[in-house]
Amino acid sequence: MTYCLGMLLDEGLVMIADTRTNAGVDNFSSYRKLHCLIDEPERQLFVAAAGNLSITQTVISLIREGLPADEEEGRIARTLGGAASMFRAAQLVGDALQIANRTVGEALNSLKIAGGASLLLGGRIGSGPPSLFLVYEAGNFIECKSELPFFQIGETKYGRPILDRVIRGHTPIAEAVKIGFLSFDSSMRSNLAVARPLDLMVMRADPSSPIQTRRIESNDAYFNDLSARWSDLLHDATRAIPDPPFLTS
Amino acid sequence: MTYCLGMLLDEGLVMIADTRTNAGVDNFSSYRKLHCLIDEPERQLFVAAAGNLSITQTVISLIREGLPADEEEGRIARTLGGAASMFRAAQLVGDALQIANRTVGEALNSLKIAGGASLLLGGRIGSGPPSLFLVYEAGNFIECKSELPFFQIGETKYGRPILDRVIRGHTPIAEAVKIGFLSFDSSMRSNLAVARPLDLMVMRADPSSPIQTRRIESNDAYFNDLSARWSDLLHDATRAIPDPPFLTS
Repeated sequence: MTYCLGMLLDEGLVMIADTRTNAGVDNFSSYRKLHCLIDEPERQLFVAAAGNLSITQTVISLIREGLPADEEEGRIARTLGGAASMFRAAQLVGDALQIANRTVGEALNSLKIAGGASLLLGGRIGSGPPSLFLVYEAGNFIECKSELPFFQIGETKYGRPILDRVIRGHTPIAEAVKIGFLSFDSSMRSNLAVARPLDLMVMRADPSSPIQTRRIESNDAYFNDLSARWSDLLHDATRAIPDPPFLTS
Repeated sequence: MTYCLGMLLDEGLVMIADTRTNAGVDNFSSYRKLHCLIDEPERQLFVAAAGNLSITQTVISLIREGLPADEEEGRIARTLGGAASMFRAAQLVGDALQIANRTVGEALNSLKIAGGASLLLGGRIGSGPPSLFLVYEAGNFIECKSELPFFQIGETKYGRPILDRVIRGHTPIAEAVKIGFLSFDSSMRSNLAVARPLDLMVMRADPSSPIQTRRIESNDAYFNDLSARWSDLLHDATRAIPDPPFLTS
């Protein structure tokens, strides 16, 4: 499993991914899931990947090396450096996933091994605000809009209720990072296949602000404090709600 | 889908179930999932069922009417009234599920329709404290113990983090009912296939206390107040956690 979260807020873009990979509970390891694909002036793109690791690594290598030529458009190789818009970049990521599905995925399927993968693509091309796409297993994709300002892939359910209740487009980035961490904390408590280190990327809406990245290790003091405070606050909050009036003791 | 929760606490047993059934989002309805199987002096048994409705209804009818004779034991029909212990009652429920699997389940499978079901069996036989069993799809079962004082069936993930953090064996029943409602509130927000009315059953450890049951309708004032307060408390709690020190603005 894996859990990756992207939040597209008025103040900017936040992406968080765990690093746990496993093939059974007796075979687990740690691999980066949040990758910087390109970081140039006017073009910064990050991807977070969930699913079969051989598929997602193939997708990322294909994107970095360039996809095979698209003869109709008369180009030699297709790269993210040549994508004219975020929509075109998402198309290229979807195409890379389709190629991986046809090669690695079919080989896995022939052995009855599930080989699905999905990706979050976030970033900006040009000087506009960042955008965020969710690329599904078939390579089709959707773009994040203000009605639901976040996307999740992988082990999505445990960490979803706190997002549903709190994350809105106007949520400040610092608060969204806290909520994102709480969403990961819930997921890690309930599913051994989601685990620290976490990787964080924050891209402000203002393109002159530098991108911030950080790895949250398993001994990260801020994260541990946040987790402990949250447990205490939840206990306090439940006590603050009146007891059911229809229960007799 | 469906969501059912059983909590076995020092103070007693709590069972909660929703009532939503659906075959696609364009065909949904409301059916009771939490049933009283028997309520006699020294024998009170409740079951909550998740899964294919034709399977779960068959199971409950079989249990109520009595299972076919077990010729080896020379009895005419096996009923919950004759079960000598909660273990034997759980065996009977598991046997009923296996019969339903062999009849209704195989007919469904022949049309490639998934027909699984699982059940929570809670209650007491005799004057001891109540106990709680989780009966899996194959009819095998486990008993709830103090290390993890709750069982969930159906749509379990959205509502699990709050249980993992707060529910312990020593949690008072009134607080456990609140937490259980919050677990359902999270599930209902994130999955349309879980919905009110909810059914609640509370059986105190003291056998002289009456069993309490209550239906929580969609306009239940206490539940609505609890849900609204919880959203406010979550917002307050996240604000009370310090912002990440490594984020620059």
